[in-house]
Amino acid sequence: MYKSRIAVIGGVASGPAAAAEAKRVSPESDVVLFERGRHISYGACEMPYFIAGEIEEKDKLVILTPDQFEETRGAGVRTNHSVDAIDVSSNRLTIESVDDGGRWEERFDKIILATGASARTLDVEGGSAENVFVLRRLEDAHKIDRALDLHPVQHAVVVGGGYVGVEVAEALVARGVRVSIVDRQGAVLGRYLDSNLQPIVQRAVESNGVVVRKDTVARMTADGEGRVDSVWTASGERIGCQMVVVCIGTVPNTQLAADAGLRIGSSGGIKVDDGMKTSSPSVWACGDCIEVNRIVDGKGILSPLAPTAYRTARVAARNAARGGRGSRATFDGVTPASGVKVFELEVATVGLGFSEAKAAGFDCVSKSISGWSRVKMYPGSKRIHIDMIAERRTGRLLGAQLVGEEGAVLRANTLVGPIREGWDVSAIKELDFIYSPPFSPSIDPVLVAARQVEKELRR
Amino acid sequence: MYKSRIAVIGGVASGPAAAAEAKRVSPESDVVLFERGRHISYGACEMPYFIAGEIEEKDKLVILTPDQFEETRGAGVRTNHSVDAIDVSSNRLTIESVDDGGRWEERFDKIILATGASARTLDVEGGSAENVFVLRRLEDAHKIDRALDLHPVQHAVVVGGGYVGVEVAEALVARGVRVSIVDRQGAVLGRYLDSNLQPIVQRAVESNGVVVRKDTVARMTADGEGRVDSVWTASGERIGCQMVVVCIGTVPNTQLAADAGLRIGSSGGIKVDDGMKTSSPSVWACGDCIEVNRIVDGKGILSPLAPTAYRTARVAARNAARGGRGSRATFDGVTPASGVKVFELEVATVGLGFSEAKAAGFDCVSKSISGWSRVKMYPGSKRIHIDMIAERRTGRLLGAQLVGEEGAVLRANTLVGPIREGWDVSAIKELDFIYSPPFSPSIDPVLVAARQVEKELRR
Repeated sequence: MYKSRIAVIGGVASGPAAAAEAKRVSPESDVVLFERGRHISYGACEMPYFIAGEIEEKDKLVILTPDQFEETRGAGVRTNHSVDAIDVSSNRLTIESVDDGGRWEERFDKIILATGASARTLDVEGGSAENVFVLRRLEDAHKIDRALDLHPVQHAVVVGGGYVGVEVAEALVARGVRVSIVDRQGAVLGRYLDSNLQPIVQRAVESNGVVVRKDTVARMTADGEGRVDSVWTASGERIGCQMVVVCIGTVPNTQLAADAGLRIGSSGGIKVDDGMKTSSPSVWACGDCIEVNRIVDGKGILSPLAPTAYRTARVAARNAARGGRGSRATFDGVTPASGVKVFELEVATVGLGFSEAKAAGFDCVSKSISGWSRVKMYPGSKRIHIDMIAERRTGRLLGAQLVGEEGAVLRANTLVGPIREGWDVSAIKELDFIYSPPFSPSIDPVLVAARQVEKELRR
Repeated sequence: MYKSRIAVIGGVASGPAAAAEAKRVSPESDVVLFERGRHISYGACEMPYFIAGEIEEKDKLVILTPDQFEETRGAGVRTNHSVDAIDVSSNRLTIESVDDGGRWEERFDKIILATGASARTLDVEGGSAENVFVLRRLEDAHKIDRALDLHPVQHAVVVGGGYVGVEVAEALVARGVRVSIVDRQGAVLGRYLDSNLQPIVQRAVESNGVVVRKDTVARMTADGEGRVDSVWTASGERIGCQMVVVCIGTVPNTQLAADAGLRIGSSGGIKVDDGMKTSSPSVWACGDCIEVNRIVDGKGILSPLAPTAYRTARVAARNAARGGRGSRATFDGVTPASGVKVFELEVATVGLGFSEAKAAGFDCVSKSISGWSRVKMYPGSKRIHIDMIAERRTGRLLGAQLVGEEGAVLRANTLVGPIREGWDVSAIKELDFIYSPPFSPSIDPVLVAARQVEKELRR
């Protein structure tokens, strides 16, 4: 019997998930996972906590070693192997061994692209010195950790105040480093939070000793040993430092797909249908490299988050591997939801923010409330601030942003389903959320926010 | 212009909510709130924490004094006034002043019953001694608190291991008292939790020094001063003690309604339509005294919980007060959801448990999983156990039970909407719940449970 061959390209999150699922669906197939680096299957989101010293052993970041993966999942793993080209007409991959530089071609029946995304780098003079880092791959985390051990770092510059920027800043503070964040907007999480919640987060960052500067980096200059000792901003200031971490977002790795002639979406991600098939009939794609549908408005977006990676990986793998068996799997899109710890705060966003909703063309209203995480008088109860956004005409919930010392992320999760399904805020305010003094007040702040938005809509 | 008169009978939770809402809807009406006791508008669920000494000032339990309520809400308040009869043909109430015993009749245009529920008492020999308590009204909490101050209590017997029983046991332990729970099943929360989660809670209770006995109370005997010093069980054991707290549930206060000829449902609560109107055209009812629709199966149940009280109060008041104006408010029922702290554990239930679902006639499957509250390797991450129950034929989620050291209650809330709307577990497992290592693992345990139930259904 002919043994079908399935190649999965990329080994961080969606790749291993896809390879494992393909083997589950089609145990008789030969499934091979290619990864350019040394590691596969690691917890990228845990890396800031590893740098902070809160997660102690490096090994815990790796969920499965290549050997463990092969043994438990049954798919072959080739680390240190780079796939340099795909010929979609013949399904041939051009493969290069990173170790010895050898190159060859191999034919597969099905190809799954899980090439992920890379850290955006700062293309400025002096920006490629050895003490200028990004944080994206496991190697990056190890490098930063070693650098902190090897060279005394009194002051570090973090470029970019997004999710990763604030996580890295906090991790460095935990390692005893003074930190300045240089952010274009001068506002941490400014891209994610609307104007009434952002200042709360800014205060938390600043009250922990982190300086936030509204500026951009123009160039960097090095000491005699080639290590950056000064960051020069566009406004002409010099910031002395012993380390720079660039956290200005990610770009999907689509070069391989584009070179193969696959269609790329307007968001910059690989275009796939609802079965994760690319514009080529034998190539599927999943994870951070693809464009996905944002359910709330049908826009094609990048969603470089682990849950999206896992979900799309399963769909891609099932459809690639199933042959004619079973039903076709589909993925109808995402409800954006993310959370981050910012020192003592939990910050969570779900759906669209107010400015994001307006930019997406919605006529919307927003309401801000402050409540308590538990019954106010119960020991340990903390303030929680919620912004809730609804479409004006229909009352449909579009999104929410939550900031507080506890309970923000799990409360945001209560709204994922309602946003996905397009519920009216007046239905949300009637949900029977639990009242239990040590855990939640008699009317949960999420319900209070929904009620306030409903009132606002009635005006 | 004729001033419409609205009477609200009962002042704890739904009564004040109804009176305030009636006045909001119809500011020109004369709204009067009658309460037999001295206090209105207090936080009944906070009382165990007051007894424990965790909530320090008694006054914090009272949300609004009668004066504050009158001033801010605009409704009149008559505490120490008992409504003894309703003549629904003439809309006349028979009112008695508790202070001076005076009795008179008063006519109202609309009547809202918010008579609540009372603690079920133990009708055994010796059971009415001064050191035998229930915990239902604010006076009860004060009495228990004072008794603990006045008389040394080394050992207390709590009768009943339900929600209030375990809360009272924990509160007494916090006050330095040794506690035995006498429970008919010998299983704390045995009525609420299925057989695989209940033992976890039992262990938590027992490891905190509380003894749980499977037994019932046959009689109590007193010392020379008339204070119970021994509880005798049905099995003939004597338990020496200096305090007894009876926590065997509540019964809806429906005598007034029944005497007036209003229809009572099979659950024992006052029968109302979806606008909270009773079988009399000028009488509405809300809160713990009514029967409500359990959405998941359409059964009429008692739901003596504050959120139900508030929601039904608003609907009853709006419909009673609106006259011909505005649209009729409706209440389509509840999705049962409750949470309780049991020493170091959070326990939450939502929808139906497995045995409850079977009793309700569902052919269902249940799956148990254990996960982590945060990313496993993140400091402070705790075990969380979830049982999830779905209908076999349709895959519809019927309920879930969650037990863990953190994040159980808020995770239960994520399922309130899906259970209410009858979602399939396969839709739930695809929800984009947040992955953020300090707050939630890459695949939230709720999603893991949904996936396991789906697998079970496919078998």
